[in-house]
Amino acid sequence: MNAPLKAVSGSERAGATLAVAMREIGREARKAARALALAPAAQKNKALAAMAEAVRGSRSAILAANAEDRAEAKSTGATAAFLDRLSLDAGRIDAMATGLDVIRKLKDPVGTVMSAWRRPNGMRIERVRVPLGVVGVIYESRPNVTADAGALCLKAGNAAILRGGSESFRSCRAIHAALVEGLVEAGLPRSAIALIPTRDREAVGMMLAGLDDAIDVIVPRGGKNLVGRVQTEARVPVFAHLEGVCHVYVDGKAKLGMAKSIVLNAKMRRTGVCGAAETLLVDRAGAAKLLKPLVTMLLDAGCEIRGDAAVQAVDSRVKPASKADWGTEYLDAILTAGVVDGVDAAIAHIERYGSHHTDAIITEDKNAAEKFLREVDSAIVLHNASTQFADGGEFGFGAEIGIATGRLHARGPVGVEQLTTFKYRIRGSGQTRP
Amino acid sequence: MNAPLKAVSGSERAGATLAVAMREIGREARKAARALALAPAAQKNKALAAMAEAVRGSRSAILAANAEDRAEAKSTGATAAFLDRLSLDAGRIDAMATGLDVIRKLKDPVGTVMSAWRRPNGMRIERVRVPLGVVGVIYESRPNVTADAGALCLKAGNAAILRGGSESFRSCRAIHAALVEGLVEAGLPRSAIALIPTRDREAVGMMLAGLDDAIDVIVPRGGKNLVGRVQTEARVPVFAHLEGVCHVYVDGKAKLGMAKSIVLNAKMRRTGVCGAAETLLVDRAGAAKLLKPLVTMLLDAGCEIRGDAAVQAVDSRVKPASKADWGTEYLDAILTAGVVDGVDAAIAHIERYGSHHTDAIITEDKNAAEKFLREVDSAIVLHNASTQFADGGEFGFGAEIGIATGRLHARGPVGVEQLTTFKYRIRGSGQTRP
Repeated sequence: MNAPLKAVSGSERAGATLAVAMREIGREARKAARALALAPAAQKNKALAAMAEAVRGSRSAILAANAEDRAEAKSTGATAAFLDRLSLDAGRIDAMATGLDVIRKLKDPVGTVMSAWRRPNGMRIERVRVPLGVVGVIYESRPNVTADAGALCLKAGNAAILRGGSESFRSCRAIHAALVEGLVEAGLPRSAIALIPTRDREAVGMMLAGLDDAIDVIVPRGGKNLVGRVQTEARVPVFAHLEGVCHVYVDGKAKLGMAKSIVLNAKMRRTGVCGAAETLLVDRAGAAKLLKPLVTMLLDAGCEIRGDAAVQAVDSRVKPASKADWGTEYLDAILTAGVVDGVDAAIAHIERYGSHHTDAIITEDKNAAEKFLREVDSAIVLHNASTQFADGGEFGFGAEIGIATGRLHARGPVGVEQLTTFKYRIRGSGQTRP
Repeated sequence: MNAPLKAVSGSERAGATLAVAMREIGREARKAARALALAPAAQKNKALAAMAEAVRGSRSAILAANAEDRAEAKSTGATAAFLDRLSLDAGRIDAMATGLDVIRKLKDPVGTVMSAWRRPNGMRIERVRVPLGVVGVIYESRPNVTADAGALCLKAGNAAILRGGSESFRSCRAIHAALVEGLVEAGLPRSAIALIPTRDREAVGMMLAGLDDAIDVIVPRGGKNLVGRVQTEARVPVFAHLEGVCHVYVDGKAKLGMAKSIVLNAKMRRTGVCGAAETLLVDRAGAAKLLKPLVTMLLDAGCEIRGDAAVQAVDSRVKPASKADWGTEYLDAILTAGVVDGVDAAIAHIERYGSHHTDAIITEDKNAAEKFLREVDSAIVLHNASTQFADGGEFGFGAEIGIATGRLHARGPVGVEQLTTFKYRIRGSGQTRP
């Protein structure tokens, strides 16, 4: 009090103003979280229905905002891939609204009794799902994340603080306005889904380290740079994966036909998703039968293969794998391939080079399969199925906010249930502790 | 490389040496965690049985070490309460061994299928419990935590890095030696339970911020200063509660007899435990009937009461409550008491002043009870039962490493199940993603 005013530069002053605004957003989100936690499923669903309608009704406003974002991005030399991620059209806006409908139709996880038991003294203990609180979501160019993430958080009874990419700021703002319309229509607080109202990049740092009291968990959605920064700087828990260096191990006892279809799907169905295979390991015991057909199939499908000596030997198109290749997530039509001595060597290789995301074994040998499923320490392990199933929708979660490779709370696809926590509810009849 | 050597002070050099040693402990723990994760239940149980035997067999060595710790603590002017926490005798050593037996008899959580479902494409998805990895435990004067925490971590398949209080260093080392004997006898790695081999206080800082790669979660066991420091400085998740400002709300529809026995138990059974009640709230609607008997009973039992005006009015021994009292965890025979306007006001009070630990309502009114259980956002909420049931043993968990008020992963008593995480195991028959 009455401390002499310190001279501050313009940017320091702006930073201080931003900090004040961010703290206010945090406080409001915390308050909204309390309201949402107690909101009945019907009210949340009413909001989600109204949001979908508002998104559909705001199509032209969203497209106009998006056109401005795109024009600016183009003028600053954004790549075609970037512009594609940024771009919205009528189809993408409809898909966003449909996504809101899908989330609305999910079962409300809040209030579910996860387990219940009675104690010898007659007390009944229940573990009940409750919302996490406030979820911070930091994303990059895709503006549709605004709707997807905001709605998933809402369904789970959480308030959301969203921070979109600065390049998609206008698009996110237009989508966010539609979400707020839906909240208001259902009588829920506007601040239940907040969008950071500035492109100032300092806001991200404040979300990561300045709002510990207001944010319970942060979910980054974007490339490795964003995720790495969030994992390094966040003062609150993070649900994320830095990378998906996913392996397919083809055991000597695999059927060639099944191995071919799974390997092709795991690598080539979509190369840019985190569950895409990046490394193929083939059992030396089956290599004579399996290796050449698999390698030829992939090369013919347009996949570059970087292999060890054994893999190079089967096709002249195979390039040599460098040491770094074994730990690389290409997110492209490139695969590292090698021959290993059975399931134990495959497991050891995966533990050494993998990212604990998703790994698969193909085999008819039950013992090898069980060993692999037990010993590979990844969020998702599969037997005789494609790694591309690493997806909340494919798990039956309806929707996901991302995939986590952290060990705590959420691991694998983060759906609406993983966005909740629990409390214990105990019903007694006068019990006291002896 | 070949950088000129910087002159370092003795303590800098010691710090660097310690950092190297700590990183080595971290690496070894990580390796041991892998072995433990795959160790069958029988092998872990063999180790636990051998540990109990070794603790019993090392009684004189442990007592001798403890005598040295106590002599030093006395010479530096430790309080009687501190010396009591530090002290071991034959009974406490037996209790430690019995605790190891109790943990051995718990069900092994690793490998349990938590849920399972089949997808329309025929894939079967299972969510299976797996160990967390490496658990860091930082504790203060009670040396028995060495055995309790080490054994609980082991049971859940986790490696443990233990850091006891520097005052109990010799006692912890003697207990730790017995645990290692048990590990070796069962063929498990010695480093599965590591004890930081120095009293250097810098080691704590390194556990909190220098071993992120080696430690998955930290559990502080001790006073508010320790827990606060760990929560502030830790770069990894923390399972803890800073304080337990637990409330008992006596509704107007409570039976006086039940209210009396629960309130007395909640406050006075043991005043120093985190589940002890610190605040009594009485419904204005029932105050005429309930308030005086409850207040008189507590005062007569030797409890100091700090009350609002209404509570002060019923007995001249009641002292006025200050603003700070409403948020204070006394851990002593002191209680703050006030009158509120029904269950809504009670809930609002608890949300404002509570610590989200454990809160109870006493009432015969089902609606008020359900409202309280639903709306109080605490790890444990009770109806017609004492807050002193906030304990893993009382929940039927067999043993606990502490109670958590954080929202993620573990909330409430942290038992052997809460020291695990999960992975998804998928069994297919050649499925690929369309």
